[in-house]
Amino acid sequence: MSSRPRLGITMGDPAGIGPEIIVKALSEKRIYDLCAPIVIGHPDILQLAVSDVVKADLQINVITAVEQARGTFGTIDVLPVGRLELAEFVYGKLSAQCGEAAFRAVETVIHLALAGKLDGTVTAPLNKEAMNLAGHHYDGHTEIYGKLTGTDKYSMMLADGDLRVVHVTTHMPLVKVSEQLTIERILDVIRLGHNACRQLGFAKPRIGVAGFNPHAGENGLFGHEEQTAIAPAIETARKEGIDAQGPFPPDTVFCKAAGGGFELVVAMYHDQGHIPLKMKSFIYDDKTKTWSGMTGVNVTLGLPIVRASVDHGTAFENAGKNIASAQSMINAIEYGAMMARGRQAENSA
Amino acid sequence: MSSRPRLGITMGDPAGIGPEIIVKALSEKRIYDLCAPIVIGHPDILQLAVSDVVKADLQINVITAVEQARGTFGTIDVLPVGRLELAEFVYGKLSAQCGEAAFRAVETVIHLALAGKLDGTVTAPLNKEAMNLAGHHYDGHTEIYGKLTGTDKYSMMLADGDLRVVHVTTHMPLVKVSEQLTIERILDVIRLGHNACRQLGFAKPRIGVAGFNPHAGENGLFGHEEQTAIAPAIETARKEGIDAQGPFPPDTVFCKAAGGGFELVVAMYHDQGHIPLKMKSFIYDDKTKTWSGMTGVNVTLGLPIVRASVDHGTAFENAGKNIASAQSMINAIEYGAMMARGRQAENSA
Repeated sequence: MSSRPRLGITMGDPAGIGPEIIVKALSEKRIYDLCAPIVIGHPDILQLAVSDVVKADLQINVITAVEQARGTFGTIDVLPVGRLELAEFVYGKLSAQCGEAAFRAVETVIHLALAGKLDGTVTAPLNKEAMNLAGHHYDGHTEIYGKLTGTDKYSMMLADGDLRVVHVTTHMPLVKVSEQLTIERILDVIRLGHNACRQLGFAKPRIGVAGFNPHAGENGLFGHEEQTAIAPAIETARKEGIDAQGPFPPDTVFCKAAGGGFELVVAMYHDQGHIPLKMKSFIYDDKTKTWSGMTGVNVTLGLPIVRASVDHGTAFENAGKNIASAQSMINAIEYGAMMARGRQAENSA
Repeated sequence: MSSRPRLGITMGDPAGIGPEIIVKALSEKRIYDLCAPIVIGHPDILQLAVSDVVKADLQINVITAVEQARGTFGTIDVLPVGRLELAEFVYGKLSAQCGEAAFRAVETVIHLALAGKLDGTVTAPLNKEAMNLAGHHYDGHTEIYGKLTGTDKYSMMLADGDLRVVHVTTHMPLVKVSEQLTIERILDVIRLGHNACRQLGFAKPRIGVAGFNPHAGENGLFGHEEQTAIAPAIETARKEGIDAQGPFPPDTVFCKAAGGGFELVVAMYHDQGHIPLKMKSFIYDDKTKTWSGMTGVNVTLGLPIVRASVDHGTAFENAGKNIASAQSMINAIEYGAMMARGRQAENSA
């Protein structure tokens, strides 16, 4: 790896806000201090975002191999992937050709990272339905990354400022979660989270582990998962030198972390982690009926490659209007760069 | 009811921060514009809080019947309840005599309210262990109120600013929640929440009902409770003229409400409602290892009488030190006064 990590940034669904937020993020000079970004996607779509949407004073540099990237502010290096009939392209319109283009960009970035040609990957949002129309049947990015990198033990981390949350389970019925809470799975996620925090620069991260039940079960009064699975996993992690603590009552461990009390919280299920993260990063204004904030980052832990992502969707209704906030993309690029550097440090240690 | 509602305020466990936060709240002149407050508890403990802890310029007026209360700022009306050996009284110490005093105050305030001598009740925190030492075996205030008022359909509402959350279930193992989510129970809680919002002055409250599963089940992909119980309860509520909406993905309905999108959220389980509320109202600072904020209010809905409460505990470690924030108590008194006025308006309609 050169002094700056080389990051591949996929364009996401071309009909969404992905191209716009990438152009806005790459209009920030400091991004180029952190990394050498390369956009993976269709150059014409990116040109459209530069000239017609954002109206940015940036040049497009089409490359055919990542080694050709200049990595200098003012020029966006683009590796062309995916074919598009521009005559049929409309912002905000669901289409198989956009789903296909989005999928091919992800596939390419994963292969380049696995081959060591990229130090990390960052993804703009794709549309699951469009991708399915194109014949690629995945729930989302995470599943594509899992499949194409041959990884089965991975975990979703969400981050916003001082609040970082890693999930033991995600997309499943809540009644099924308890049976998934094995000592082994919880321990795996604690380890993944610990390693991620170290890559982010925390020498000895403090990890707060949430309970599963109200009041963390109150000594078995309101459930047993804390005693049978969570506490034993914490104990084993501590024996390995990991500063895991808990299990804590779920309703205060997240606000404690948001105030700097833990570098990471381990959440047992999707909404336990997503509710506090979005309370922090999503801001709604009923007067204008609009959402702002959207500063969160989604990182997939446990992969052989670095992957960071925005934590919002394609926002088709806002696409092409130059109203989307690039903050989540900027934060995702920062996270991707930090984790790529952290891996480099680990590998050279 | 006189022009100002008459509120009974229980002192809570004398060894906790209850007496201090009551004295601090009653040092605010505007409280007396909202209500005529009467403290229910031991006068000597209240005098100690006034003279030794808060050092407030307030007089104590001991009364033997609520009709004797003056209700004027500068004088705290106290109805004596409970006996205490002051020689054995120590701030922060768990004791049966304090548990007994706390319980008797709650018992008295409930009987006075049921008899129509008080328009509403507000409670300072009690210590469950101390109360148990005194032979009163309840989980907390809510259970005492349920038992002594003969109510079985009640619900816990938490409120902080624009975020109000009412719970379908609370203190039970998370694996048991699904079977409690009947159409009837959810509908009861929607109705209780609707009526409470009307008492708080919202003519046509918008009620956001949370789903139970991630993404509100995504059309049955991640669980069935939305389809079998939550959606039918919403439909019935709407037929009754209640503006219930949903079921919504749990990770965004609370931030939408916090931004003014709903007057109330119906949460399916304890932590679904408690996590976002405490993310808003509890502020932790790792530098000083202290919590601040604590602005939330806990209201019991479905009772024949009004009951509002602070949403924090006795904080034994801080008792007698004049460092406790009275904000939650001030907010609880405001809520109690608003709901007492709302009931008056309903009864006179």
